Amino acid sequence: MSRRSLHLPAPDAAVLRARLDRARGAANGTGLLIAPGSDLRYLLGQAGGSYERLTTLVIPAVGPPALVVPKLEAPGFGDVPLDELGVEVITWVDGDNPYAAVADRLAGSDLVAVSDFTPALHVLAIRDAMAGVEQVLAGPIVRELRMRKDAAEVAALREAGAAIDRVHARVPGLLRVGRTEAEVGADIATAIVEEGHAQADFVIVASGPNAASPHHDVSDRVIESGDVVVVDIGGPIAAGYNSDSTRTYSIGEPGDADVAATYRVLQEAQQAAVDAVRPGVSAESIDAAARDVIAAAGYGEFFIHRTGHGIGLDVHEEPYIVSGNELILEPGMAFSVEPGIYHQGRWGARIEDIVVVTEDGVESFNQQPHDLVVV
Amino acid sequence: MSRRSLHLPAPDAAVLRARLDRARGAANGTGLLIAPGSDLRYLLGQAGGSYERLTTLVIPAVGPPALVVPKLEAPGFGDVPLDELGVEVITWVDGDNPYAAVADRLAGSDLVAVSDFTPALHVLAIRDAMAGVEQVLAGPIVRELRMRKDAAEVAALREAGAAIDRVHARVPGLLRVGRTEAEVGADIATAIVEEGHAQADFVIVASGPNAASPHHDVSDRVIESGDVVVVDIGGPIAAGYNSDSTRTYSIGEPGDADVAATYRVLQEAQQAAVDAVRPGVSAESIDAAARDVIAAAGYGEFFIHRTGHGIGLDVHEEPYIVSGNELILEPGMAFSVEPGIYHQGRWGARIEDIVVVTEDGVESFNQQPHDLVVV
Repeated sequence: MSRRSLHLPAPDAAVLRARLDRARGAANGTGLLIAPGSDLRYLLGQAGGSYERLTTLVIPAVGPPALVVPKLEAPGFGDVPLDELGVEVITWVDGDNPYAAVADRLAGSDLVAVSDFTPALHVLAIRDAMAGVEQVLAGPIVRELRMRKDAAEVAALREAGAAIDRVHARVPGLLRVGRTEAEVGADIATAIVEEGHAQADFVIVASGPNAASPHHDVSDRVIESGDVVVVDIGGPIAAGYNSDSTRTYSIGEPGDADVAATYRVLQEAQQAAVDAVRPGVSAESIDAAARDVIAAAGYGEFFIHRTGHGIGLDVHEEPYIVSGNELILEPGMAFSVEPGIYHQGRWGARIEDIVVVTEDGVESFNQQPHDLVVV
Repeated sequence: MSRRSLHLPAPDAAVLRARLDRARGAANGTGLLIAPGSDLRYLLGQAGGSYERLTTLVIPAVGPPALVVPKLEAPGFGDVPLDELGVEVITWVDGDNPYAAVADRLAGSDLVAVSDFTPALHVLAIRDAMAGVEQVLAGPIVRELRMRKDAAEVAALREAGAAIDRVHARVPGLLRVGRTEAEVGADIATAIVEEGHAQADFVIVASGPNAASPHHDVSDRVIESGDVVVVDIGGPIAAGYNSDSTRTYSIGEPGDADVAATYRVLQEAQQAAVDAVRPGVSAESIDAAARDVIAAAGYGEFFIHRTGHGIGLDVHEEPYIVSGNELILEPGMAFSVEPGIYHQGRWGARIEDIVVVTEDGVESFNQQPHDLVVV
């Protein structure tokens, strides 16, 4: 018997009811099926979690929403004001066919939208239970809601940013020659919880040549004098909203002669992108603001990922700060600004802040200095 | 920038090559698409992980397999002997269409099997890229391989069982009146890692009335004298194979008068189910062996879940020990035996061991005593 999920306090009924109504409106006649995960946490206050057993929130075009949930998972929604929200609960036990219950609730729809991270296991079973009904993704519907944060959500992200800043302030005390990345990472994970997160969600400690791999996490590599170390860390606070911040450290003076000059370019690029954030500009223009600085310095080919990703209940969500995304930024949109420069086999660096678009500009949730931190 | 996955050592090329060949054979002409997760770890030695960006192992009916992977995730497969396995690597960057690459590799197939936990995001994009090709689940194909463990896999599960036994041996020292479930859970999580796991995957500390909810995890409830506490814990060892074991504790003598007699029934039921395990009997007969004992004592309605689940690279996998599963057990099949009795609002209890079917009977990987542990 097991599951991995985080039980967090649910928002007020009024907030959830408004979100459910807006989701139904945005769906515009399409039936919505919301699987466990952040979409469910956003709409119902709990993320759920049931692996191979179907849990889904059904929002039909007409009629009340319903939560289809295995009987043994139902207590996980015990603090959600389901009655007050007008959500009917349909429990099922092993041996029942929960897909028939879903099809029944959506009878009459000729289009059904399934949330983006619904497992294929359920996508295909729902397809078979609803012959002739076309399936589309619910992501484009739900993200229109989720990417515009309200004041409480912005406050939660601000709190998460301050918490991860306190962790970065402790990192110089943990990075020492002779320790492994994994040892440092374990201490950072403890600090993430101590400084106010509900859990440590990810800990990247990428030293020396490992720093050139943007998605490295930790390894048994022993930290050496002269290493550049990328530390990219975060997790959710109790309200469910995530931190995500990267700083780059150097163990004594950097061993590679080109670090100092290159890092200055990176720092300038990151600042240029943050400075470009305001309502009315496109997501891709923020990516370009960082990329142009790096390319002008001749390092364009070493910046091998997009500049950022939205953040909220998920660490990665809309809006993505990437070439081709013409989305116009609005107040309440929150995302990372995290250019990096990676020299394969030698070293790499990245600087990452979470920012939110304000009424007239930008607010950064991370206040730790952007300089290369020599420890 | 973030991801959550565990980088573990990959098995030998010979083992992986044999698995890939067996998967292709079992697919019998159907193209296979394997998403990040345990299926990918089983077939390729690493689980991968890319959230919204497509990573998939393509196993066509004819021709070499291919790994389609975002360029920035490719280093995560750096220790997989892809050349030796004959797996071509197709990297892509933001802006490319990876689904077209998949469709190209599977051209000529009229059936494609997607692994069970592929997100809808990718399921529907693959559907659209391969018009007229029917999608089915890869689970039934891959689980035929995965549920029959070889000697190395059995050894890994045995090691995981011994590690979680050592954690349970420490639990009486952590359970004290006045501590919260969450505080005890944090200590147990630390102990899980200290005793030889790569991480703590789940920690259930369900005290008092919370013990009646089988999927409770931890809460801020303060443990009181007379509480019955269900502790259900586990995680993967370095080889990727999981532990999962439950014991039930009592803080002093149980406060409810019916605990002792009911617990004796539960203990008898669990032992009856373990004793029933051998090659040639059905999965559902093991469920019945436990359920019959509990029903005969009049507690049938309080045993509200199946008796067990398979375990390996996933905590939950085939074979499920449940009514209706007529699968005949074979040597190498490993699963939990975990009946429980739950009195809503008062207390609950569960006993869980992981066992494997041997050539002539059963081996249990958990040796901690089954008695109610009074601390």
